[in-house]
Amino acid sequence: MATAELTAHELIAKHRPTLDQALEAIRTRAYWSPHPEHPKAYGENGSLDMAAGKAAFDALLGTRLDLGQPGTDGFVGGEVSPYGIELGVEYPHADIDELLPAMRSGMRAWRDAGAEIRAVVCVEILKRISDRTHEFAHAVMHTSGQAFMMAFQAGGPHAQDRGLEAVAYAYVEQVRTPDTAEWTKPQGKRDPLALNKQFTPVPRGIAMVVGCNTFPTWNGYPGLFASLATGNAVLVKPHPRAVLPLALTVQVARQVLAEAGFDANLVALAAERPGEGIAKTLATRPEIRIIDYTGSTSFGDWLESNARQAQVYTEKAGVNSVLVDSTDDYKGMLSNLAFSLSLYSGQMCTTPQNLLVPRDGIRTDEGPKTYDEVVTDLARAVDGLLGDDARANALLGAIVNPDVKSRLEAAAGLGEVALASREIANPEFPDAVVRTPVIVKLDGAKPDDEAAYMSECFGPVSFAVAVDSASDAVELLRRTVREKGAMTVGAYTTDDEVEGAVQEVCLEEAAQLSLNLTGGVYVNQTAAFSDFHGSGGNPAANSALCDGAFVANRFRVVEVRREA
Amino acid sequence: MATAELTAHELIAKHRPTLDQALEAIRTRAYWSPHPEHPKAYGENGSLDMAAGKAAFDALLGTRLDLGQPGTDGFVGGEVSPYGIELGVEYPHADIDELLPAMRSGMRAWRDAGAEIRAVVCVEILKRISDRTHEFAHAVMHTSGQAFMMAFQAGGPHAQDRGLEAVAYAYVEQVRTPDTAEWTKPQGKRDPLALNKQFTPVPRGIAMVVGCNTFPTWNGYPGLFASLATGNAVLVKPHPRAVLPLALTVQVARQVLAEAGFDANLVALAAERPGEGIAKTLATRPEIRIIDYTGSTSFGDWLESNARQAQVYTEKAGVNSVLVDSTDDYKGMLSNLAFSLSLYSGQMCTTPQNLLVPRDGIRTDEGPKTYDEVVTDLARAVDGLLGDDARANALLGAIVNPDVKSRLEAAAGLGEVALASREIANPEFPDAVVRTPVIVKLDGAKPDDEAAYMSECFGPVSFAVAVDSASDAVELLRRTVREKGAMTVGAYTTDDEVEGAVQEVCLEEAAQLSLNLTGGVYVNQTAAFSDFHGSGGNPAANSALCDGAFVANRFRVVEVRREA
Repeated sequence: MATAELTAHELIAKHRPTLDQALEAIRTRAYWSPHPEHPKAYGENGSLDMAAGKAAFDALLGTRLDLGQPGTDGFVGGEVSPYGIELGVEYPHADIDELLPAMRSGMRAWRDAGAEIRAVVCVEILKRISDRTHEFAHAVMHTSGQAFMMAFQAGGPHAQDRGLEAVAYAYVEQVRTPDTAEWTKPQGKRDPLALNKQFTPVPRGIAMVVGCNTFPTWNGYPGLFASLATGNAVLVKPHPRAVLPLALTVQVARQVLAEAGFDANLVALAAERPGEGIAKTLATRPEIRIIDYTGSTSFGDWLESNARQAQVYTEKAGVNSVLVDSTDDYKGMLSNLAFSLSLYSGQMCTTPQNLLVPRDGIRTDEGPKTYDEVVTDLARAVDGLLGDDARANALLGAIVNPDVKSRLEAAAGLGEVALASREIANPEFPDAVVRTPVIVKLDGAKPDDEAAYMSECFGPVSFAVAVDSASDAVELLRRTVREKGAMTVGAYTTDDEVEGAVQEVCLEEAAQLSLNLTGGVYVNQTAAFSDFHGSGGNPAANSALCDGAFVANRFRVVEVRREA
Repeated sequence: MATAELTAHELIAKHRPTLDQALEAIRTRAYWSPHPEHPKAYGENGSLDMAAGKAAFDALLGTRLDLGQPGTDGFVGGEVSPYGIELGVEYPHADIDELLPAMRSGMRAWRDAGAEIRAVVCVEILKRISDRTHEFAHAVMHTSGQAFMMAFQAGGPHAQDRGLEAVAYAYVEQVRTPDTAEWTKPQGKRDPLALNKQFTPVPRGIAMVVGCNTFPTWNGYPGLFASLATGNAVLVKPHPRAVLPLALTVQVARQVLAEAGFDANLVALAAERPGEGIAKTLATRPEIRIIDYTGSTSFGDWLESNARQAQVYTEKAGVNSVLVDSTDDYKGMLSNLAFSLSLYSGQMCTTPQNLLVPRDGIRTDEGPKTYDEVVTDLARAVDGLLGDDARANALLGAIVNPDVKSRLEAAAGLGEVALASREIANPEFPDAVVRTPVIVKLDGAKPDDEAAYMSECFGPVSFAVAVDSASDAVELLRRTVREKGAMTVGAYTTDDEVEGAVQEVCLEEAAQLSLNLTGGVYVNQTAAFSDFHGSGGNPAANSALCDGAFVANRFRVVEVRREA
């Protein structure tokens, strides 16, 4: 590291306090973030302000992002924003037989640097990304279809938080075992046995991150930083429609690694040609020892079954439910649910899909409400929330791809439509496909309806499922989580018994529960350092963001012992 | 717990200090054990002394160990000691359709008890086992074929240490997340968002421990206690030839659980009829969510491929090497190696198999030694160590099963025999099959020899593999660990460059290395709380005893959040 532009000493001095705060936050799980959420907080100390971020993004359009990777055998591109813009950015396409060995060659120095240096290098990468949050916001917006403010927050500070959280977990896991130990075992009157022991965290190999279309940075950063911080090289395989945010991430990581005296090839991009399906090829390469994946259940299952040489962390499909039994804040419940259904057109793995409502109605602070009234009032709340086109556009964003649009259109045929989806015009981006959510009434007792509500219908589609009773709802919740998995569960109840029953189902089936949310926190949002994203204990995901299990098997500890 | 004979308060008062010491030991990895190694240390404070332990074991012979398990549909038995005694103990055979649901029914209360209560209940189980160490020693001896002293130590205090180590790791992993958190997020001039959060460690389900023949308690306890301490129920499926030590363990665990007010069925035994192969049936049952297995690579691989509903922790076959390059204590090296090859007739997963010796010889404090001299001197050292029949019996124990005997006999045909195996008479147990180790010369450059030294030959068989040079040895070591796995690696060298190269191979291939052992510590022995057993990073085992990764995925954390 002698010739590095960034010395270990400087990096530790600069970032150790941030790391320590992150370590404290994951221990207390109180609110904390070093990454500002407000767009106006940027523009000083080297960070790009709103105008500069937009200009930086605009300057990227139509360019070639040559990362200088070994084995580059051409360039690929072709991203079209859900808002209608052709990005025209080209990325290196890799000959993996050349790239993978190049990625391995820097691993020894990265391993030998130790957990603390790796952690602060990762924090520096995140800091540089944070400084460019405005630029990343546009990149996330124009690949995921998120509205600007959401792309800014979820794709910027919230994603950076999840990355830093993974760095903190990775660091603390590696330093649980000391670097050295002196071991002296008494032998009665004879001399004691004495050994000197060295313990070294060693990486597994090359980790692959398979990015998703909707949250390229938020879902990509935890695996990327957990693997890098534990000494692995990381190959980022972005979703073909959401390359730019991860390509920029790789670019920053390579710059920081090189400046810190490490091999830039410890992080690389694997962009692909249309239809190339490179993830499947890479996933079974012997060099790939860790895979992080967010996407369909079918490919997630394929990875778990076939990438046997790798540790595989998957987030797949699930069916999220909200049980509606009773409330002492009917208006608050409706507005909270309306927001949850609308945010990013329901294109979140955490968006509620099934609203389980007793067919005899519910108790509220405004008196009893029938099933029909609840559904109608919720439809009205969504309508009210999205009544103004500017606000609707700011909340809904754009439909990310034609599959979501098709599912939305088909959903109206699944039952009685309580709230029809509407088209919203986007004056700034006339080609954007913007749609309000549909709410369809289904009957939990009808076998024909079961196929609909027991499958994930990813997008702005919710089902108001009529159930016989609260306990019927609880049992349907249990069955749904057990068979289909769930990233989130919500419940509204003022009845201790119902609350206890829902809670027990969530504990037994390992689902994360939000109770009686009526204010500014939504079931589909989790905060890094405090909330777990998924549980890793039901079919929706085999890991949680972020906990010890997410990092502990990304490295191993090798012991060397000698007589003292 | 109100009516329990053992209250939570009492258990915490009694065992929390032990737990705290264990937590400190895994952090510093200095020497520590609460379980005395000397047979004479037992006999006070309720523990059985030598005579009482022997009497307790004798009283078990020919009896039925009815554990009072639900679904018992008969009794099975038939263990014959490698020392020739028919144990005649009968164990319950279970209808698993009745037993598994019964095991689940106590899990809620066990979960709700929390990590600390579970930990101290586990410590109480281990304490009761510790008190009966002399009785367990005979049970381990007469199922594994270990000599008494080894059965006493490895089957007693060392196994208990590994169990306690797992309890400590499980405890600390569960309390990394607080029980509750208050989360308050500033919102500028508006009121902050505030949530109360509860975090509960929840078990995965029923864990199965598949015991092995050679170390029923030592290899069984880590998984058993890691799963139990994290809230799971544990079904113990012993090796049909080594049921008694684990049946006694299950009996103690059931007693303690019941006395502490929990359901005894949280721990149960699954003994099987001859040829029933119940492990395969159980391994794919949906109720079984965790499997710990020690045994053959073929069944380990089968479990990893087929028990997809479970977390699978396997220790399989491997090929352990010792690289012999140079030494400044030739006599110490020979006597240390001779002991390692002889202990328990080499029937340890950690026994060295391949001794990699340069064909041009090595440098020693007694001058240069040719390959032939090294091998001859080692053979002489083994002969000397085992020259006295009483000492030979005390070191070798008995051959555990006919397969090992067959392999030993066949080994002599694989190459030039440098040390022939001898029969040793055991005056106390005339039917015991006692054999000294064989050392066979092989040539690392001969393709015909490779099949032998690149396969695990479990038992008292070692190969003196002639290699071209130290660097040739290093490369063979790398290939062996990478392709076949290794639980241990040893090396003797006074050359910094060779030492560095061996160390680098072990770091890159994730193998545990012992350097230049010439005294009373042997490559095949590891100490709980300090040494890792295996690395979990090469094909010999997918997990290490014991680290965070061994416990972190045996439970999940469920969060329930509410507005404050």
